[in-house]
Amino acid sequence: MTTPFHHLLGIEDVDADRAVEVLDKAEAFFEVSRRPVRKVPTLRGKTVINLFYEASTRTRTSFELAGKRLSADVVNMSVSTSSVTKGESLYDTCKTLEAMQPDLVVIRHPASGAPHYVASKCRFSVINAGDGTHEHPTQALLDAFTIRRAKGRITGLKVAICGDINHSRVARSNALLLRKLGNEVRVVGPRTLMPPDFSFYGVIEHTRLEEAIEGVDVVMLLRIQRERLEGALLPSMREYARTFGLGPKHLDLIAPDGIVMHPGPMNRGVEIHPDVADGSRSVILDQVESGVAVRMALLYMLVGEGAGAPVAEA
Amino acid sequence: MTTPFHHLLGIEDVDADRAVEVLDKAEAFFEVSRRPVRKVPTLRGKTVINLFYEASTRTRTSFELAGKRLSADVVNMSVSTSSVTKGESLYDTCKTLEAMQPDLVVIRHPASGAPHYVASKCRFSVINAGDGTHEHPTQALLDAFTIRRAKGRITGLKVAICGDINHSRVARSNALLLRKLGNEVRVVGPRTLMPPDFSFYGVIEHTRLEEAIEGVDVVMLLRIQRERLEGALLPSMREYARTFGLGPKHLDLIAPDGIVMHPGPMNRGVEIHPDVADGSRSVILDQVESGVAVRMALLYMLVGEGAGAPVAEA
Amino acid sequence: MTTPFHHLLGIEDVDADRAVEVLDKAEAFFEVSRRPVRKVPTLRGKTVINLFYEASTRTRTSFELAGKRLSADVVNMSVSTSSVTKGESLYDTCKTLEAMQPDLVVIRHPASGAPHYVASKCRFSVINAGDGTHEHPTQALLDAFTIRRAKGRITGLKVAICGDINHSRVARSNALLLRKLGNEVRVVGPRTLMPPDFSFYGVIEHTRLEEAIEGVDVVMLLRIQRERLEGALLPSMREYARTFGLGPKHLDLIAPDGIVMHPGPMNRGVEIHPDVADGSRSVILDQVESGVAVRMALLYMLVGEGAGAPVAEA
Repeated sequence: MTTPFHHLLGIEDVDADRAVEVLDKAEAFFEVSRRPVRKVPTLRGKTVINLFYEASTRTRTSFELAGKRLSADVVNMSVSTSSVTKGESLYDTCKTLEAMQPDLVVIRHPASGAPHYVASKCRFSVINAGDGTHEHPTQALLDAFTIRRAKGRITGLKVAICGDINHSRVARSNALLLRKLGNEVRVVGPRTLMPPDFSFYGVIEHTRLEEAIEGVDVVMLLRIQRERLEGALLPSMREYARTFGLGPKHLDLIAPDGIVMHPGPMNRGVEIHPDVADGSRSVILDQVESGVAVRMALLYMLVGEGAGAPVAEA
Repeated sequence: MTTPFHHLLGIEDVDADRAVEVLDKAEAFFEVSRRPVRKVPTLRGKTVINLFYEASTRTRTSFELAGKRLSADVVNMSVSTSSVTKGESLYDTCKTLEAMQPDLVVIRHPASGAPHYVASKCRFSVINAGDGTHEHPTQALLDAFTIRRAKGRITGLKVAICGDINHSRVARSNALLLRKLGNEVRVVGPRTLMPPDFSFYGVIEHTRLEEAIEGVDVVMLLRIQRERLEGALLPSMREYARTFGLGPKHLDLIAPDGIVMHPGPMNRGVEIHPDVADGSRSVILDQVESGVAVRMALLYMLVGEGAGAPVAEA
Repeated sequence: MTTPFHHLLGIEDVDADRAVEVLDKAEAFFEVSRRPVRKVPTLRGKTVINLFYEASTRTRTSFELAGKRLSADVVNMSVSTSSVTKGESLYDTCKTLEAMQPDLVVIRHPASGAPHYVASKCRFSVINAGDGTHEHPTQALLDAFTIRRAKGRITGLKVAICGDINHSRVARSNALLLRKLGNEVRVVGPRTLMPPDFSFYGVIEHTRLEEAIEGVDVVMLLRIQRERLEGALLPSMREYARTFGLGPKHLDLIAPDGIVMHPGPMNRGVEIHPDVADGSRSVILDQVESGVAVRMALLYMLVGEGAGAPVAEA
C-alpha cells in the first residue's frame, strides 16, 4: 500500500500503482461471486449507503451486491423517496447521513464535483459512482480489469473511445486511467460532441470512426443520450448510427484479437450493431461481472481491514 | 424428486407430483415464520433478485421475506428506479443481471411470456411472479396449499372461480393446477370477461354466480380491475357487485364447510362483501401466510440444496 | 419494567418512568454505532417492516439502520411502489402484512391516528413514525436523549418550541414528553399557526420569539412547511424569517449554555440562520445520531428479549 486510501473520487487522484493494486485485489474477489456460497464475512458490521440522485439499474445493483457479498449492511437512498424533494441541500443530507455513522457512501449526482464536496465535509469514505459529466472512476477501473483479463495486460495497448466524448464521464475516467497505465488512447465522435480541448489528457483526436479504430486492441463505445438530440447536438439517431455506429465490418479494421466494450445500457442499432454486441469480440457482459468484483475490492480497501486510514470512528 | 426443477414459469410445466412436492416442502417452512426466530441459514450466500416491472405490495414483500428468512441476499429492482426507463430491452437487462451472478430472479412483467423468454436466455433460475394475463404460478401453489390446510386434501374438491376470467393470470394458473390435482373447476363471470374458449382447461363455464357456486368446497374470487370499466367491458362497479359480488346470502349455497378465497388486494363491496371477507369462511389471510411458506419452499427447491440441477455456476 | 410495552403510538401513552427507561437503554446502544463493527445479534430472526405513506430520508433510514444494526430483517414499503396505489385500505394492507408475521411495523401516515388504528387491529408491535399533525413520539424521545446528553439532565429545564405549533407533530410530542419529565415548555409562532388551545398541555404561549426564548436552556425550532404559504397562513418566507427565524443575536437571550435543536430537514435562512445551524450551540446532528440509538432501544424493548409481552406469535 502506497498512501492512505480513504476516498475514490476520481481517476485524477489515482496513480498507476494504486490502480494496479485495485485490479489485483479484484482478482481475489472475482471468484467469490462464482462460488456456490457467494459471500464472505469481510465487512460484517460495516454500513454502506447508496445515495443515488440519478436512476441506475446496473451501478446501484452492482454496489448493493458487492456490499452484501462482503456482509456489509447496505442501505439504498434514491431521490424520489428522500427528503431531497423537500429541498434539503446536499450538505445537510450528507451531514445527516454522517451522524448515522456510515462507513462509506456511494454517491451518484448530476452535478460534477458533488462527491468531492461531500468528501471534503464528511468523515465517511466516499465513492463517486458518477458525477455529472465529470468522472465515473469505478467504471474505468472495472473496464481496466476487464481489459487485463481479456488481453493479459493493461499497458502498451491501443484503445479507441467512440461517441459523445464531451459529455461522457465514462470517457473522461477511462482516458485518464488508460493513459496513466501507459496506453495509447484515441477519441472520436461528432464534432459537436467533442470537447474543446482534450489534448491535456494525452489522447489523440479523430473525426472518422474508421481512422480511430484502425489497429486498436480495444474499442470502447459510449451510450448516446437521446436527450442530446433535442439540444440539436446530433442530427438523428439514424445519421449517428450510419457515421459512428460500430458494425460487423468495422471489426476487420481493429487488431485481430481486438475487443469491443460498452458501459451499458446499450442503444442497439445506434452506437452498436446487435451482431457486434452479441458477437465473440464483445466483452460487454464481462464488464458487468468485473464491476461487482472491482467494487468489492474497493469497499474492502476503503473500509475493510485493508483500509489505509482509520475510518469513520467518532 | 422426479426431474430437475430449475425454473417455475407456469403451472403448465408443473405436474401433480411436483406440485404436491412443493406443498409438502412448504409445510416444513410454514412453521419457520411462526417461530420467535423467523430465520434459517438455508440459502446463506445465495442471491435472489426481485425484478418487478409492475408494482405489487404483497408479492414483492412476500418474496423478499421468503428470501431473507432463508438468509439469502435479496435485491429489489423496480421499473421506476431502473434503467428500463432509459429504454433498455428485457434481454439486455437480464443478461446484465446474469453477469452479476444471481442464483434466482423473480420476475413480474406486463407481457405474457416474459419470464419464459428470460429463462431461455439466462443461466439463473426464474420464478414467474405474474406475466401479463398469462400465469401466476406461485399464487396457484399458495392457494392449493391454503386449501389443503383448510380442507385436509387437495383433490376431489369442487372449486368455483369468479370474476374476470379472461384477463386473470390467477384464474388461469389456478384452473390448471386444480384440474391437474383432480378437482372440479367451475368458472363464472360477465360474458364480456369470459375467455373465448376455456374448455381445454377442463373447466365448466357458468353465467350465473348462484349456479356456479352451488355446493362448492371453495369459492375463489378475483379482483376486478377498475381499468376494465373504461374499456366498457363492465357496466359499472355497482352493477358488477349486484350480479357477481359474493355476499353473506351466497354462503348458504356453497358446501357447509366451504371456504372463500381472494388473491388480494380486495375491492370490498365490489367482488366481495365485507362481511364475507372478514367472516369465518374466509381464508384470505391464510393465503397470505401460505404465500411466504410456499415461496420459501420454491426458493429452497430451485437454488438450495434441494435443487435438482447445478445452478448458475459459471 | 413497569407494564408491558408492546407499541409506541404516542407520548400520550408513555409515562415518565417508561421514557427514562428508553433513554437509559438508548445509552447502551449509542456506542454500538460508533464501534468498528456496528452490529449486535440482538434481533436476529426478527422482521421489521417500514411502512411509509409519506416520503422521508432521515426517519426511514434511521429505522432501517437501527434494525439492521440489531441484525433484524428489515423490509421497506413505500406508497409509490405498493398496491396502495390500487386503492387497498389501510386495514387490508396491515392485515396482509400481519399474515406475513412481522414482529414490528414502523408506520408513517398522513392521517392522524392511523398507527393507533393499525395497532388495534393487528398482532404485531407498532411504532408511530409520524401520523398527520398528531404525534411523532420517536422524535420526542430522541430529542430528550439529546438534551439529556447535552445538559446532563432532562428535568427542570426551560424549553422554547418555535414555529408552526398547530400543525406540528414534533411540537405536540415534545411538549407532552417534556412536560411529563418536569420541564417548563414555552411555545411561540405566528398567530395563524398557533393551536386554538394548547393550555391543556401545560405549556406557556408567547407571541414574540424574543420573549419565548429568554433564558431558556433549549430552543427547538420547527420546519416551516412551504405549503402553508399557499394556504395563506403565512405572509412570506422572508417575513417569517424576519419575525421568527433564529439568528446569531438571539443566542444572547438564551441561557449561557443553552442549545439549539431542529428535527430537520432545515430551511436554512428561514426558521434558522445558517450560522446558528452550524454553530457551537447547535446539537442538530447529535439529534440524528441519537435517533439511531433511541430507535435501536425501542426495537429492542418492543420485540427483543426486553419485550414486556410475548410478541406476534400465532
